[in-house]
Amino acid sequence: MDLETLQAAKARMAQLTKPPRALGVLEEVAVRLAAIQGRVKPELGPGAVVVAAADHGVVAEGVSAYPQEVTFQMVLNFLRGGAAINRFAQAADCRVYVLDVGVKGELPEHPGLLRAKVRPGTANLAREAAMTLEEAERALQAGRTAARKALSEGATLLAAGDMGIGNTTAAAALSAALLDLPPEEVVGPGTGLDEEGLARKRQAVARALARLRPGMGPLEVAAEVGGLELLAIAGVYLEGAEAGVPLVLDGFPVSAGFLLAYRLKPKVLDYAFAGHLSREPGHRRVLEALGLRPLLQLDLALGEGTGAVLAMPLLRAAAAILHMATFAEAGVSGPVS
Amino acid sequence: MDLETLQAAKARMAQLTKPPRALGVLEEVAVRLAAIQGRVKPELGPGAVVVAAADHGVVAEGVSAYPQEVTFQMVLNFLRGGAAINRFAQAADCRVYVLDVGVKGELPEHPGLLRAKVRPGTANLAREAAMTLEEAERALQAGRTAARKALSEGATLLAAGDMGIGNTTAAAALSAALLDLPPEEVVGPGTGLDEEGLARKRQAVARALARLRPGMGPLEVAAEVGGLELLAIAGVYLEGAEAGVPLVLDGFPVSAGFLLAYRLKPKVLDYAFAGHLSREPGHRRVLEALGLRPLLQLDLALGEGTGAVLAMPLLRAAAAILHMATFAEAGVSGPVS
Repeated sequence: MDLETLQAAKARMAQLTKPPRALGVLEEVAVRLAAIQGRVKPELGPGAVVVAAADHGVVAEGVSAYPQEVTFQMVLNFLRGGAAINRFAQAADCRVYVLDVGVKGELPEHPGLLRAKVRPGTANLAREAAMTLEEAERALQAGRTAARKALSEGATLLAAGDMGIGNTTAAAALSAALLDLPPEEVVGPGTGLDEEGLARKRQAVARALARLRPGMGPLEVAAEVGGLELLAIAGVYLEGAEAGVPLVLDGFPVSAGFLLAYRLKPKVLDYAFAGHLSREPGHRRVLEALGLRPLLQLDLALGEGTGAVLAMPLLRAAAAILHMATFAEAGVSGPVS
Repeated sequence: MDLETLQAAKARMAQLTKPPRALGVLEEVAVRLAAIQGRVKPELGPGAVVVAAADHGVVAEGVSAYPQEVTFQMVLNFLRGGAAINRFAQAADCRVYVLDVGVKGELPEHPGLLRAKVRPGTANLAREAAMTLEEAERALQAGRTAARKALSEGATLLAAGDMGIGNTTAAAALSAALLDLPPEEVVGPGTGLDEEGLARKRQAVARALARLRPGMGPLEVAAEVGGLELLAIAGVYLEGAEAGVPLVLDGFPVSAGFLLAYRLKPKVLDYAFAGHLSREPGHRRVLEALGLRPLLQLDLALGEGTGAVLAMPLLRAAAAILHMATFAEAGVSGPVS
């Protein structure tokens, strides 16, 4: 973040051929992009989304509407280009990187697949630590490595996506732990859970939270409650912030992963934009805690990075605002005094 | 609208590799696009926005924060590519057509300018009929002609934009008349009016409404209250609907023009998508009356078609949903029964 550029961009914004604040939320996005890039006229090219995938032992508790094998199957769907994230990314000049940090089962070699499996799914977070601290660190590093690859291949804005049956349970536990909230405020229906399932999910989260001890650091908390892809997501954003590129958040699991990154390194927030607000109730709590206003509110609840990628054209449009003509350049009169 | 395709698209939507309703609002957009195009897998290419510009005699009442010459100056800014609509359109694969139906002053010849001036601005709607019925018809035809040109040059989705200092006063009068609402529910600050200005604006609208007689048709009402660009906007949408392309609405003036089109030919609504919800209070009333849910809520209040063009990538993403793989195609398991 370059504060001098921020001020210069705000000054330019006030001179552009439009009434003050007429471009609403996008004006703040524009000046923040300028500050991130260190130039008054920011420019955004191709995007990238790192879709981190992993399985969750907690599915044994009956916390998901879908069977565990769907994680594996959906990763294959990503690699074949058949999923929502593929279609949205193609429409938004965004490249998809699929990162296996913990999918159960042996995925085939594929040029689009980054293989960095830490373990084949977490342990059941309702019963025991989801992973060791060392595994947590490896998952985080895998996210960093994936982000570095995306950046080295031309990404100018970066998002993370998630795939993992059961991962809204881990996201709820992680958010509740980091924000000190009770389970009922962050547990939602995920992909479509019924009332009994919701009760089991709240119970699973409560059990995980009960194991936490005062003074645990954010990474220790994350190792305790999981999941592997949430740690990878934190790594993606930490690396992106260090490289100085704008970061776009997706829904609840991705935002929970970002929250972890923020607790590890608060500066990451300077680079972050909330792509959308999902239907999952915990998502709103996380974005509010971060002070981020979502660009889209489309009642999405899919994950994969879809809401982040849908917002990428809005970020590009916001950057374009600062390329408009000023009143002086265009010879346009200002307001009647 | 092809109802058979609508049903087939809904059936396909239920089979795609995502939980039911996980793509929220975009799922309805997708199946409506399928029905409009008559194919289960809709495809959207380049867009076009026809920015209709005209002046308003009602500015004599002190209803705008900007002087009248800004209309002329901003049209030049559009032609030189310096305005927000130019920047947003470029980022959204959308072509800008500038249509002069009533700008005060002689605009230069320019390849990007469609010259169809009906008269150099309306009469003062607070004092007398804004235009004759014959002039209203000519303005509407000018919009139709501009839309035909855009469609013949490859537009696959169509928006209208507006430029006209004073035009939220005309939009308020037109909306109030067509929806039978009192002025205070549709009059807002426009480009930034103070309290005294707002009182004058409400008064101007009330005077215009007082001249309306029971039994007047929508076109007669529009001739009475203006403005020329609102009639052109109605023409753009009428022509677009006849050509069977998806239509994207912008903010308050454009939506008021669309409302007129809807009153002239209700079928136009089948093709319409609300690009965004603006800050101008009358806009919400018009969209509610039409039953349209806005795709974006970014606190915009600019016009020019900006909110419509910002939504174009979302329409393209929605169309892409129906190109996703089904559970059967991808070998992905469905929900646990």
